[in-house]
Amino acid sequence: MSIPIILTGFGNVGKAFVRLLVEKHEDCRIRYGLDFDLTAVVRRTGAWTAKKEGEFFTIADPAAEPMEASSGWASGMRFSDALGRARKPGVLVECTPSNWRTGEPQLAYLHEALDKGWSVAAASKGALVVDFKNLAAKARTHKLALKFSGATAAALPTLDVATISLAGAKLLSFEGILTGTTNYILSRLEQGMSFEAALKEAQAKGIAEPDPSMDVDGWDTACKTLLLANAAAGTEFTIKDVKVEGIRHVTAGALADARTAGHSLKLLGRFYDDAGKYRAEVKLTPVPPSHPLFRLTGTTKGIVFRTDTMGMVAVTDGKSDPRGTAAALLKDIINIYR
Amino acid sequence: MSIPIILTGFGNVGKAFVRLLVEKHEDCRIRYGLDFDLTAVVRRTGAWTAKKEGEFFTIADPAAEPMEASSGWASGMRFSDALGRARKPGVLVECTPSNWRTGEPQLAYLHEALDKGWSVAAASKGALVVDFKNLAAKARTHKLALKFSGATAAALPTLDVATISLAGAKLLSFEGILTGTTNYILSRLEQGMSFEAALKEAQAKGIAEPDPSMDVDGWDTACKTLLLANAAAGTEFTIKDVKVEGIRHVTAGALADARTAGHSLKLLGRFYDDAGKYRAEVKLTPVPPSHPLFRLTGTTKGIVFRTDTMGMVAVTDGKSDPRGTAAALLKDIINIYR
Repeated sequence: MSIPIILTGFGNVGKAFVRLLVEKHEDCRIRYGLDFDLTAVVRRTGAWTAKKEGEFFTIADPAAEPMEASSGWASGMRFSDALGRARKPGVLVECTPSNWRTGEPQLAYLHEALDKGWSVAAASKGALVVDFKNLAAKARTHKLALKFSGATAAALPTLDVATISLAGAKLLSFEGILTGTTNYILSRLEQGMSFEAALKEAQAKGIAEPDPSMDVDGWDTACKTLLLANAAAGTEFTIKDVKVEGIRHVTAGALADARTAGHSLKLLGRFYDDAGKYRAEVKLTPVPPSHPLFRLTGTTKGIVFRTDTMGMVAVTDGKSDPRGTAAALLKDIINIYR
Repeated sequence: MSIPIILTGFGNVGKAFVRLLVEKHEDCRIRYGLDFDLTAVVRRTGAWTAKKEGEFFTIADPAAEPMEASSGWASGMRFSDALGRARKPGVLVECTPSNWRTGEPQLAYLHEALDKGWSVAAASKGALVVDFKNLAAKARTHKLALKFSGATAAALPTLDVATISLAGAKLLSFEGILTGTTNYILSRLEQGMSFEAALKEAQAKGIAEPDPSMDVDGWDTACKTLLLANAAAGTEFTIKDVKVEGIRHVTAGALADARTAGHSLKLLGRFYDDAGKYRAEVKLTPVPPSHPLFRLTGTTKGIVFRTDTMGMVAVTDGKSDPRGTAAALLKDIINIYR
C-alpha cells in the first residue's frame, strides 16, 4: 500500500525524519507492506513537492544539499497548495517549531489536514496543547488518526503505553521525567555544579536551547504532562490547569537534604486522582532509590503509571535526540496503517 | 458495538477475567464503545452458554457459585458446540492450563476459532509455543487478531512495546525477568535462604506451583522469550532453539561473587543478534546497579529492549497475579476493536 506523506518543518527533527525514511523505506515495505511516499516538504519560505512517486530519494541528504536548491522547490508555496497536489490523503508529519501559547503555525496545518482526510503524526506540541479537544474530536469524526508520540518524550513510549498497553484500566496517576534538559542539569547540580555552569554546559552540548526557559522553567514538562493526561484519562486540561515549577531556583539546601536522605532530586510531571478530581503539576521531587526513576540521570527520561487493575507500570530510557523523535514519528505512521 | 466473547478455561485466570468483565463492562461501553457479551464458558467437563444477550451477569461471582450449578450449563458440551451457538464471531479468550509440549487442548481451540472467524486473546502459552508460525499465518490470512499479552508476562506490556512501540525499529536484543516465581526465589536466596526453604515458602504463598519445574527449571521464561522473539523479530524459534538454564543449582559461590561485585543475580530470558544470527537463551546473569532490572526483587518482572533507532527502552513492574493477567486479556480485546 502506498502512503503519501507530507512533512511540515525541516529543522533537526524534520531532517532526521527524511533520513530515517530513506534508511527504513525498504524495510517497512517488507515488514509492514507499507510503501511510504514523501510527496511534499513544507517550510515557511516555500515547499518542495515531488513530481513523481518515489522521488523523495533525491533529497536523501538534505543536510548536505539545501532543500531550496532541489528540483521541485517552489518559493512561497503554501501548505494548502502542497496538500492539494497529493494523489490521495495520507499522513501529515508535523515538525514545525510551534508556539505553545498560540499553537501556530501547527494548529492551522493540523486542522486543514484533518479536514481534508489526512491522519497526523506530530512531533510538535503547540497546537495539541492549545486545542487538543477539538483536534481529537475532529479526528474521531473523520475516523482519522491523531498521533503524537514524537511530542510526548520521543522514543520513550509514553503515549502508547498510556493509551494502548493500559487500555481498560483506570489511570490513578502518573509521574515522569519528561524533559531531558532539566534532568541533565539536575544531575550536574547533584554533582556540585552551579546552575549557570550546568546550563552553559548543556547549551554547549546542544542539550539546552539558546533560550532555555521552555525547558528549565518547567513548561516543556507541563505540556507533555497535559497531553498525556488528556489523551489517557480524557481530561480537558489547558496549560493554565497545570501548576508549574522550574529548576532555576533549586537551593543548595534542597540538594543537601535529598543527598542526606539518599534521594535524587527530579523534576516530575505529575498527574493524579486527588479524591475524585484529577490534578496535574510539574514539581521538584526527591525520589528514593527504590523508585523506578531514581536511576535516571543525564538526559534519560522515564514515566511511572499507576492503575487499578495492572498495578504500577514503569517505562524508562529511549533515545532522546532527533533520530529518536524521527523513529517515534515513523512508529506512529506504521501503527496508523496496521 | 456488541462483541461476543467465548472463554475457554475457568481456573484462577478465567474466573478473574469474568469478574473483571463484570466490573469493567459499563466503563468499556462508555470509553471505547464496546459492549462485551460473554456467550460461553467452556470447561473440560462441559460448557455454559448464554440463552440471551447480556446474560453473563448472572454468573457474576463464579467463585461463590459453581458454574456447573448455573442455568445454561450443559455437561459434555464441547468447544465446537459452544462456538456454533454464537450469533456472530467475536473473540476467543483462551485460559486453559495448556501443555507446552503438545499445546493441547489450546491448539485445537485456537485453530478452530481462527478458522471460524474469531480473533484470539490468549493467556495460555502452550499452543503458541508449539505452533506460533501456523497460527500467526492463519490469523493474517483471515485478517484476524492473534493477541497474547496475557501469556507474555501479564500486566507488564512486553508484547505491546515489542510490536507496537518499537515498530519500525530493528530489535537488536532484549533481556527480561519474565517469571515472577524464579525472581522471588532468587531474592530469597540473596537474603541467605536455602533453595528448598525459598521454594517451600513460594509454594505456601501461592507464588510457585505444586510442581514447580516449569518455573524453576527456566521453561516458563524460555516459552515467553521465544514467543516475544517470534512476534517481535519474526524468528521461527521452537523451544529446542532456546538454551535453557534454571535456578535449582545456584551455588553459594555464584551468590557470593554477585554480592561482592554489588550485583544481583537474575534469571534472564535473553534474545540477541549474534553476528547476524538471532539467538535465545535463559541464563542466570549478575546484573549491576545501573541496569534497569537490578531494582526488581520478589515477583516483580521487567524487560529491556535495545534497538537501532530508539536506543534502549525498559519496561518494568505490572501486576503479577490473575487479575493482572485478566487485565491484559481485556486490554488485548479492546485493542483488537479500536
